[in-house]
Amino acid sequence: MRVAIAGLGTVGAAVADILISRRDLIAARCGRPIDVVAVSARDRSRDRGVDLSGMEWFDDAAVMATEADADVVLEVIGGEDGIAKAVCENAIAAGRHVVTANKALLAIHGKALAQSAETACVGLGYESSVAGGIPVIKALREGFAGNRISSIHGILNGTCNYILTTMRETGRDFDDVLAEAQALGYAEADPTFDVDGIDAAHKLALLASVAFGCEVDFESVHVEGIRHVSADDIAFADELGFRIKLLGIANQTPDGIEQRVYPCMVPMNAPLAHVEGVFNAVVAEGDAVGTSVLQGRGAGAGPTASAVISDIADIARGTILPVFSVPASQLTKSITVSIENRVGPYYVRLTVLDRPGVIADVSAALRDEEVSVEALLQRGRSAEGSVPVVLTLHETQEAAMQRALSRIAKLDTVVESPCMIRIEYL
Amino acid sequence: MRVAIAGLGTVGAAVADILISRRDLIAARCGRPIDVVAVSARDRSRDRGVDLSGMEWFDDAAVMATEADADVVLEVIGGEDGIAKAVCENAIAAGRHVVTANKALLAIHGKALAQSAETACVGLGYESSVAGGIPVIKALREGFAGNRISSIHGILNGTCNYILTTMRETGRDFDDVLAEAQALGYAEADPTFDVDGIDAAHKLALLASVAFGCEVDFESVHVEGIRHVSADDIAFADELGFRIKLLGIANQTPDGIEQRVYPCMVPMNAPLAHVEGVFNAVVAEGDAVGTSVLQGRGAGAGPTASAVISDIADIARGTILPVFSVPASQLTKSITVSIENRVGPYYVRLTVLDRPGVIADVSAALRDEEVSVEALLQRGRSAEGSVPVVLTLHETQEAAMQRALSRIAKLDTVVESPCMIRIEYL
Repeated sequence: MRVAIAGLGTVGAAVADILISRRDLIAARCGRPIDVVAVSARDRSRDRGVDLSGMEWFDDAAVMATEADADVVLEVIGGEDGIAKAVCENAIAAGRHVVTANKALLAIHGKALAQSAETACVGLGYESSVAGGIPVIKALREGFAGNRISSIHGILNGTCNYILTTMRETGRDFDDVLAEAQALGYAEADPTFDVDGIDAAHKLALLASVAFGCEVDFESVHVEGIRHVSADDIAFADELGFRIKLLGIANQTPDGIEQRVYPCMVPMNAPLAHVEGVFNAVVAEGDAVGTSVLQGRGAGAGPTASAVISDIADIARGTILPVFSVPASQLTKSITVSIENRVGPYYVRLTVLDRPGVIADVSAALRDEEVSVEALLQRGRSAEGSVPVVLTLHETQEAAMQRALSRIAKLDTVVESPCMIRIEYL
Repeated sequence: MRVAIAGLGTVGAAVADILISRRDLIAARCGRPIDVVAVSARDRSRDRGVDLSGMEWFDDAAVMATEADADVVLEVIGGEDGIAKAVCENAIAAGRHVVTANKALLAIHGKALAQSAETACVGLGYESSVAGGIPVIKALREGFAGNRISSIHGILNGTCNYILTTMRETGRDFDDVLAEAQALGYAEADPTFDVDGIDAAHKLALLASVAFGCEVDFESVHVEGIRHVSADDIAFADELGFRIKLLGIANQTPDGIEQRVYPCMVPMNAPLAHVEGVFNAVVAEGDAVGTSVLQGRGAGAGPTASAVISDIADIARGTILPVFSVPASQLTKSITVSIENRVGPYYVRLTVLDRPGVIADVSAALRDEEVSVEALLQRGRSAEGSVPVVLTLHETQEAAMQRALSRIAKLDTVVESPCMIRIEYL
């Protein structure tokens, strides 16, 4: 089987290296040899540690997708539009299978690409786009084929998990740890996609589609990032028996589908509480299988290349499945349950003036919205006159919680805008 | 696609129920409907909650395997020989695909069955035989197809994990907790296969074959069970920062393959330390993917049926792969590394007379075998004159450790045979 690789960054080069160096083993596993026959990248002269002689070079990846003598086109350029999209579209139009690591592209154009691929009877593999080394698309689409999945949730962004883990371990603040993560290469120069939750939301939209058989609906994902999580919140979480994790959570409910990305507190005994650093983990709840947890490296050249080769191997063996678990024409329109309907417990941290009556004011605001307090922690006295007050609230509806927070924010004695973090017993 | 089910216990009935009740969804996922057309069990009249009308009944499952009008035969009778083996052999000989949950059968006859199946060009699915709801065979054979796997290890027996977890949580002894587990249905009336490690060894032999591409070699697995683990050991483990788990461990080393099942101490921060109760977990180390951890229910009708249907769905989609990741003819002969060559740290608990010089005698025995002490805990004084002494030993070779234990056992001041538990930093 002949593969053309569009993009020779660390992932593309790692895939080429494994396919070349492990050709016999992969042939034994797949029933036929797999060869890289064409490549395209920006700079032909750069040394990538891979011998490109014998491979056809294309300056234009979109042209390669149409013209290369290949059965499979691998797209590892990235970006939700532009050249990456053209490569995938051209390859499908030319009757070639497509493998891509591009979650942004699929989160936005997934339905159209799936329809084109299925019409053209070609495969569209994207295992590498979600949670790198974790074979979660395969588990959902094949391993749990007999199940109705009610929930899929997890730690989907290694950068955020690294930052939150390091904040906890060192007691340092977000900005400080982000700068270090950037220096170490764990965070991009522009960290927006990661720390604002967008990358996790792309992945969650794909997981929800595969798990529930609904159209990919990235626009409906409620997204919050981790910029507002402070060292104080992390310390309080520890004291309360929680860990703060950025989770993607998708639930199938009688009212529709919930798709949410936000930092939340998970109890110390939850499986996700112990997933630290750059690791990702995904939890699936199936009606037959029960709870299943898959954990592994979420990014990096090796894990991503491993997932890419899994997709290529499937194609080599003739395993061409509906892209999102059922044929694209049968995917249901997803009905989104608004975040306002979330029902669950909450954590709130306030910065208040250290004077009598403050707690009474806050308590009244909560009572007026029928939000019930589970615990209240007040810490020390401050020279500047302001102190943190931490509350945990019993199960309540998000809309009521938001109204209560608006009331609280308006109190004269509350000097910063309240910090709210949802508690998830998963 | 037509399925015949041999065995209508809880798993067989659950599979039939899911295939019937979820027929449309499974058809959408697999590209064609899947129907149960024939069944065989001991008692035709028993109510299993499944409508068997419209299915052909066979009193003899081995006859059904040959004569039923089926594409796939599911074997969920169990047992390493006898009728289960005949069902699988007959089905393959008749050109039918086989799906089985029978780890004992495959651990012993896996190579021969794989050869027959591959010669007959039929599938032989056994996802349900290892770690129930965890799609680990699929992950190894397909998800990690681009990797060389250096290690596969995990908690493979839910009964043992339940017993060890309950012993730790309640402080009770093995016999007491086993009796309770039997009453609750978590352990068999004859618990030998589970508590003596044989069930875990069957599964480990299958995992090693898939992971390393070697012949299944159950005979070479070093097996120890958990009967000798006492409440004291569990309490000491806790104090030392460990959890005691029955692990199956298979490593690919330059000298050959290590396959071992024994209770061991794992550090509290290891992923396996937090896998509790009836849950199973498997850790794979691949050279591209890094560390991957898969966790889920190891047994029970639902998880096992889920895995069975995953195998049936693969066959419906035409995914027929080499049984043990590469064709049976290409499986390597496994060269076994003896347990005597294990190098690692150890925990030893002694019961000694409470008198001067005991520690000197024990230390001398260890010194004479060049085993070096990391820590020594001595607890309290006893009215009967004997007290526990716990040692942890630095990395040493198993053979030296065993020689030292023989010397120690012969000391007059050591009143019970020493309890040794290996420490694994996994």
